[in-house]
Parts: sequence; C-alpha cells; structure tokens
Amino acid sequence: MAAAFELFEERGYDNATVADIAARAGLTKRTFFRHFADKREVLFAGGPYLQDAMVAAVGGAPASAEPLQLIGAALEAAGEFFDQGPELARRRRRIITANPELQERELTKLAGLVAALADALRARGIGDPTALLTAETAVTVLRIALDRWTDERGDEDLRRLLRGSLAELRAVVAGTAIAPAVGG
Amino acid sequence: MAAAFELFEERGYDNATVADIAARAGLTKRTFFRHFADKREVLFAGGPYLQDAMVAAVGGAPASAEPLQLIGAALEAAGEFFDQGPELARRRRRIITANPELQERELTKLAGLVAALADALRARGIGDPTALLTAETAVTVLRIALDRWTDERGDEDLRRLLRGSLAELRAVVAGTAIAPAVGG
Repeated sequence: MAAAFELFEERGYDNATVADIAARAGLTKRTFFRHFADKREVLFAGGPYLQDAMVAAVGGAPASAEPLQLIGAALEAAGEFFDQGPELARRRRRIITANPELQERELTKLAGLVAALADALRARGIGDPTALLTAETAVTVLRIALDRWTDERGDEDLRRLLRGSLAELRAVVAGTAIAPAVGG
Repeated sequence: MAAAFELFEERGYDNATVADIAARAGLTKRTFFRHFADKREVLFAGGPYLQDAMVAAVGGAPASAEPLQLIGAALEAAGEFFDQGPELARRRRRIITANPELQERELTKLAGLVAALADALRARGIGDPTALLTAETAVTVLRIALDRWTDERGDEDLRRLLRGSLAELRAVVAGTAIAPAVGG
C-alpha cells in the first residue's frame, strides 16, 4: 500500500496513524480496517500470497520429487512472486529494520511460513523431522536471498540469488564450503 | 527460576505477577528487577549462557575448521549446556507455547543467537552469505533437536538428537533424504 509506505518513510512508522494512512489513500478508517487488522499488517499484506504460491508449488510438484526438489520448487515460486523488482521490498525492509515491534512480527510471520510449508510437505507423505528441516531450509534460503536482493544497489535477479544461496547452503552442510581464511 | 515456573504453571503466565514471583522466591520486587528486566525475561535468563557457550565453541575450534565443523562444535556446546535433562526445558516450552507474546520473544532471542554466531564466524574470516547460512543452519538444527527432546517422554540424549538432526539436514540438502511415500 503505497500511501502507508510513503507516510512511514516521511514520519517514521510510529508517528503515522491509521487515520493519516487512510486519508492519504483516500479511504475511510473503516475501510482500512476491513483490509488490515492493524497498522502493522499493511507491511505484511503480501505474506499470505507468497505463502500460497510456495505451498502450491510444493503441492504441485511431481509425485517423485524429493525434499531438495520441493525446496527448489518453493523458491522458484517465491522468485516469481517478487517479479516487480527489489525497490518495494527494499523500502519495506528499511521500515521494518527501524522498528523492533515490526521485526518481531516479521519473525512471527516467517515462523508461520515455515509451519505452512512443513504442513504441505507432510501432506506429501514426508515425515518429521524431514518435513520441518526442509521447510526451515527453504525459508532460511529465502530470507538470505531477499536480504542480499534488497542490499544490492542494482536490480540483481532474485531467482539467481535464490539458487546461489541454496547452492551455498548445500556446500556448507556438505562440508565443501570455502574454509576460513584466518583462524579464530 | 523455579518459583516463577511453578507460578506460571499454577496460574498461567498472564496471571502470575512479578510481586507473586518475588514473594514465592523470597525476593523483594527490587531484587527481582535487578536480575530480570521484566517478567518475560525469567524464561530467557539462560539464553546468554547458551549463546556464550556456542560462540566460544566457534571461536575455540581449530583454525582449519570448515563451516560444517563449526556447526558441529557449536551444537556440541549446546548439548553440554542442556546436560541437566529435558524436564526444565519441557516445562519452559509448555509455558512459552501457550503464549503468543512469549513465542515472539523466543523468536527474537533465536534471531539474536543467529546474529551472534554469524559474528563469531565472520571473526574467523568466513564471509557472507556463508557465515549467515552457517549460523542459521546451526540454530535450525538446535531448535529442531530441542523440540524433539522436549517432545519425548523419556530422557533421550540431546547430543544424539543434535547429531541426528544435522545428519538429516545434510541428507535433505544433498538430495538423498527419503523421497515422499505418496504424491501431492
């Protein structure tokens, strides 16, 4: 919601009221609250769509797909979800990083995404702890790739970053990541 | 803090006041607040010690250690930290699971643990995203092993669960985890 982002940036998240946001967007407060449970939710409105896309990718993968391929399918879906470029994600991240309360909600939403993906994996007959580890891995890779994407100045391709982060994680846990340059 | 755990269990977390907890423990409220910033912190008092133990294990590993070995060292230190058996962790988990506000703080504390481990890895010359992926992986494995440990009725060895969860994660990301039994 562009009006809310603008206000958060102009005044800071804490100083922008729902009345301000609604007015800027040309909405009544009542209409605002029909769409968003509270002010914070404006920043998390895309979450359920991302989650649905990732869960659908897991559910729609071939029956023979192994956990690693399901992680790949979920990440490809996430890459498509963010196909409008990093600028909005970058602004959103700046607002969230400045506010501990928003950071907490972000963590809670990501934990919900892990739980939803784990359920989708269990629905495919994958047991625990594999389902949970697979879901956690997908979300870890997503978070790290999104951080890199929104760190970059340019318009790096998110899908490339997602694949690169997954490859890097595979190297780390396989024990083939680059050894440290200096000792501790 | 045994007195606080008892009160949270008897009355529910929300209904136990700091005055109650202090009285049960034979402390003044003032002394309580010298040890804990607020009521929630009673449940997270062990966190810094766990973090210090894991960070020290990363810092103290041989100079040649690769990221995977550093994850192993951090997890062994965590296994030692919880050497008093699962009962207290199980009670703690029950209290936290019943309360969304406590769940949020738990997530925030775990994010802090990831950040501290990532810093310890960077101090060894490991760059990003490897440092962050390695730290995330260590904490994911720790969380899943702790969940299994506190789920169990018996006294399963946490170190065995930590090693098993790390092995399972390695199998998932290597693509050698057991394929799902049924298609989605």
